[in-house]
Amino acid sequence: MTLLKDINSPADLRHLSRAQLKPLADELRAFVLDSVSKTGGHLSSNLGTVELTIALHYVFNTPDDRLVWDVGHQTYPHKILTGRRDQMHSLRQFNGISGFPKRDESEFDTFGTAHSSTSISAALGMAVAAKIKGENRHSVAIIGDGSMTAGMAFEALNNAGVMEDVNLLVILNDNDMSISPPVGALNRYLARLMSGKFYAAARNVGKSVLPPPMLEIAKRLEEHAKGMIMPATLFEEFGFNYIGPIDGHDLEALIPTLQNLKELKGPQFLHVVTKKGQGYKLAEADPVLYHGPGKFNPAEGIKPATAPKLTYTKVFGDWLCDMAEQDKRLVGITPAMREGSGMVEFEQQYPSRYYDVGIAEQHSVTFAAGLACEGLKPVVAIYSTFLQRAYDQLIHDVALQNLDVTFALDRAGLVGADGATHAGNYDLAYLRCIPNMVIMAASDENECRQMLTTGFQYNGPAAIRYPRGAGIGAEVKKELTTIPLGTGEVKRQGKRIAIFAFGSMVAPALQAAEKLNATVANMRFIKPLDVALVKQLAESHDILVSVEEGAKMGGAGSAIAEALAELGINKSVLILGLPDQFIDHGEAGQLLALCGLDGVGISNSIQGHYHLAEATTVVEPRLVSNSN
Amino acid sequence: MTLLKDINSPADLRHLSRAQLKPLADELRAFVLDSVSKTGGHLSSNLGTVELTIALHYVFNTPDDRLVWDVGHQTYPHKILTGRRDQMHSLRQFNGISGFPKRDESEFDTFGTAHSSTSISAALGMAVAAKIKGENRHSVAIIGDGSMTAGMAFEALNNAGVMEDVNLLVILNDNDMSISPPVGALNRYLARLMSGKFYAAARNVGKSVLPPPMLEIAKRLEEHAKGMIMPATLFEEFGFNYIGPIDGHDLEALIPTLQNLKELKGPQFLHVVTKKGQGYKLAEADPVLYHGPGKFNPAEGIKPATAPKLTYTKVFGDWLCDMAEQDKRLVGITPAMREGSGMVEFEQQYPSRYYDVGIAEQHSVTFAAGLACEGLKPVVAIYSTFLQRAYDQLIHDVALQNLDVTFALDRAGLVGADGATHAGNYDLAYLRCIPNMVIMAASDENECRQMLTTGFQYNGPAAIRYPRGAGIGAEVKKELTTIPLGTGEVKRQGKRIAIFAFGSMVAPALQAAEKLNATVANMRFIKPLDVALVKQLAESHDILVSVEEGAKMGGAGSAIAEALAELGINKSVLILGLPDQFIDHGEAGQLLALCGLDGVGISNSIQGHYHLAEATTVVEPRLVSNSN
Repeated sequence: MTLLKDINSPADLRHLSRAQLKPLADELRAFVLDSVSKTGGHLSSNLGTVELTIALHYVFNTPDDRLVWDVGHQTYPHKILTGRRDQMHSLRQFNGISGFPKRDESEFDTFGTAHSSTSISAALGMAVAAKIKGENRHSVAIIGDGSMTAGMAFEALNNAGVMEDVNLLVILNDNDMSISPPVGALNRYLARLMSGKFYAAARNVGKSVLPPPMLEIAKRLEEHAKGMIMPATLFEEFGFNYIGPIDGHDLEALIPTLQNLKELKGPQFLHVVTKKGQGYKLAEADPVLYHGPGKFNPAEGIKPATAPKLTYTKVFGDWLCDMAEQDKRLVGITPAMREGSGMVEFEQQYPSRYYDVGIAEQHSVTFAAGLACEGLKPVVAIYSTFLQRAYDQLIHDVALQNLDVTFALDRAGLVGADGATHAGNYDLAYLRCIPNMVIMAASDENECRQMLTTGFQYNGPAAIRYPRGAGIGAEVKKELTTIPLGTGEVKRQGKRIAIFAFGSMVAPALQAAEKLNATVANMRFIKPLDVALVKQLAESHDILVSVEEGAKMGGAGSAIAEALAELGINKSVLILGLPDQFIDHGEAGQLLALCGLDGVGISNSIQGHYHLAEATTVVEPRLVSNSN
Repeated sequence: MTLLKDINSPADLRHLSRAQLKPLADELRAFVLDSVSKTGGHLSSNLGTVELTIALHYVFNTPDDRLVWDVGHQTYPHKILTGRRDQMHSLRQFNGISGFPKRDESEFDTFGTAHSSTSISAALGMAVAAKIKGENRHSVAIIGDGSMTAGMAFEALNNAGVMEDVNLLVILNDNDMSISPPVGALNRYLARLMSGKFYAAARNVGKSVLPPPMLEIAKRLEEHAKGMIMPATLFEEFGFNYIGPIDGHDLEALIPTLQNLKELKGPQFLHVVTKKGQGYKLAEADPVLYHGPGKFNPAEGIKPATAPKLTYTKVFGDWLCDMAEQDKRLVGITPAMREGSGMVEFEQQYPSRYYDVGIAEQHSVTFAAGLACEGLKPVVAIYSTFLQRAYDQLIHDVALQNLDVTFALDRAGLVGADGATHAGNYDLAYLRCIPNMVIMAASDENECRQMLTTGFQYNGPAAIRYPRGAGIGAEVKKELTTIPLGTGEVKRQGKRIAIFAFGSMVAPALQAAEKLNATVANMRFIKPLDVALVKQLAESHDILVSVEEGAKMGGAGSAIAEALAELGINKSVLILGLPDQFIDHGEAGQLLALCGLDGVGISNSIQGHYHLAEATTVVEPRLVSNSN
């Protein structure tokens, strides 16, 4: 590491000669690989953006010029070049740096990203702001071809394309991949664009960006065709000046192109072709496997875990296959999360009933509604945090028509290393207010399977939430059994104190109950709530507690409070759950403990609140990430 | 009316000769105009779809073939032809037929629509279902050019374009309008497509759909260009077979084209050009004015109301202009609702700070976030029901970064004639769980102005909700004053009973309080809640009641219950609000009364719940719309 060690900001980078950039790229790539192999994190995407990152910071005057990285899991090179090289060892760890851009982490992180397809909208906002304020700066959105399939990217293109006086550059980082292989018409279209490289290059000459070959003919053809045919690319049809495709690993193509683009006014579009995993053979060969690995030895590559723990994701995937076998009406839908949602095997077994609709949560839900109208039984597998993207579709297209769609909500609650952007903390509140919804939270693996079956058999919209990762190790029974709608169960009979526990909090509640000799109910249903059980326990206990892995405001505890109010029971309930703040990345167990949501925390909170013996003061954890 | 009177279903229509269809169209158009002039409702859009509706039901075997009408406010001709002619007098009225398609109203209404841009997703779901079930039926989505700008339409195109074996027809009903004039690049593109009509027609010949003119040349040019340039239209680039544009008022063009398209396999796209208001000169001249009129005399046209009542929309519009004058950082954003949100005057006064981003709620919010990153102060004017479309953007792009964006939430609570699809009932619950949010509800016009100022001055995300229509008639003061954050106020001091009232429910709560001699607090803030005031009133009163115009689950009353729990006050609160069911269309005041949310209803509920003297039994209203 001879060059990289002296780069502490892009200003340092801009002092290098053009000739030094290639060796710098080699060092940077090696650093990324070494660093990720030690911390885990996103790999393939970051190996793919090494040269593009160098070129952008070399050509643009960051941070005065704004770079907005879509999704942001490709920003490790950017972090390393913007003064965070020495913090890469803390990546995605508690109190360490984030795996995504974050506004309060660096002035070079102009916009916090993580969910896909927001970059063009945000960069356009910045560009319009510069115009309004009379500031002469550039705004650049860097967006992958996968992210381009989400509707909001098109909404932004549609809006930006008519703003002739804004200083906006959209860079399509085309690596022919989402996390999973890409799907959909846009992907096919981009492949055609690539194969039409010659013509594209030809057209660019007219714009004097690339060195001119022979291209009078092509230009003349374009003139000739004008008024009769449309512009050549979809992006031009949207009003952008389109340049490309160019090789995103070739600094000698990138830098002059970006320098030229910097001089052009109005919305510009640069199509860059990169390779996920570039420069690391194993990742090039299997970018999906190397998308987001844990720690590994770069010389050996990722080893398959021996006897991996059974995750909830796997429980769902197994259930999906078993249920599909039993019921031909089942259709499985994923918005571009085949691996993450555990649907690889289902796709193999039932290819004609498997639909990966692309990064298109909105469409996925309404598409499911259409299927349900015809008597099929769609199962939408979606992370809790991404269902936020389809909230209106859930209300307006599914719940309002009381259609039979089952939602498998993975990653409910705290998600750990991905942090606040991916937290599945709000689903209980945002689902509970919707009429017709049935909402369940799984407390163990077997119950998850039962709940999936219950939701599937229920003739209406049902959501089953379960946490990221492994469960408590419950044995999963093969039969497909259901749970009576709206019924909880008493897991432990104690005295005086009754704990209403939801989903992942049943286990720690039971731990706390051992200490306090409390009664614990596994409520199972957030909606319909088991009001009879609430009444029974409220009347037979002095102290009432609810506990959930979700935002306290409007969540399951709030449902208990409402039920008590409705019953006219004049006892207050102590509502335990996630505090009203965004919670940064870190190991999920550690974060839960900091929020008081482990066994000790729960018993401490109860003792503290009710001034019981042995109370320990609970210190509010400093978890906030949001003051910028 | 000689033909129309005998058409009681599309089967009757299909018995007519082709020659009879034009006279039928004339009758149908006259019926629509007459009917809407008597009931109010959508006019321009329905005059524009008369011929298209006839042609679709004539050619396709409805209801076995599925028609999905996007938005659905253009379905009056469809309703009239599908057995609901005699119910048109009850349109949009309580217990009458809906202004939108509704699954439980007719088997011809295959999908409930109202929010835009859902039709392609739903129709694709139906088409895929037919494929899976081995049924040979057609699925047709009819979508306007305005609706096409929303991202989810693109998500659906992207998904559908690669499904070569589904029986899907998308009809673009291109009338060059949203409700407001259309914006964005797609609109420009469609205009170019229209001007390139000659070439488009030429290309269609190759597909032997339209009568052939001279077009060998065009065809040869296309051959010549192949491999060098892309297909001619964006829709072909997405994998559709594109036909058009054709005249959507010419039955002799529509019917043969649809008949031919019926024979083609795979995703088909028909571009139809219509005119909003067609056949009624006044509506043709001003389709915006005639978009959704009240009752009027067709011979005279709409007369300007003398001294119209001051609506909350107007209060917002006035405030926006006044605040913009005072603070140059203000930027006003609307997702295609310039008129509906009261921004006509603002656009005229501050064109460079006005952004209509198209039907693109997701983009509107993240675009605002980008502006806020640069120190501007965006105000997003959006209906409560449409903010559901941008829920993830609100959480992930605005609140998580604690950005200074103000949300003016119009149409909060029940909206009346538009019904369940447009209800703004969920915002309190879905906003309350988001950290960093400030949420206010206006109880009168002047307070609305104060709250807008308060939210605008607050350096973070704030939402101000206000109802549709006119307020209670409070005088609006010119000064721009604020309310201290998180403070309510006691409006009436009574005894024993304390009512925590929110927004529009303050006025009826005061009426109820007169009868019961109750204390009434105008809480003003849902978040942060005035916990000190809750404590004070809870301690000094025996009976606690909360009332809001919003879903009870997780809403403002729930916040009161949580606060009491947190305070450890062992008194239950009677939570009054909207029941956990979808509420159909009807006059808003009447619906509120049926939900017990007028003065009498509130006092009755309190008396009934607490067995006070003079209690009246409250009958649960039958409002459900959702069992299909």
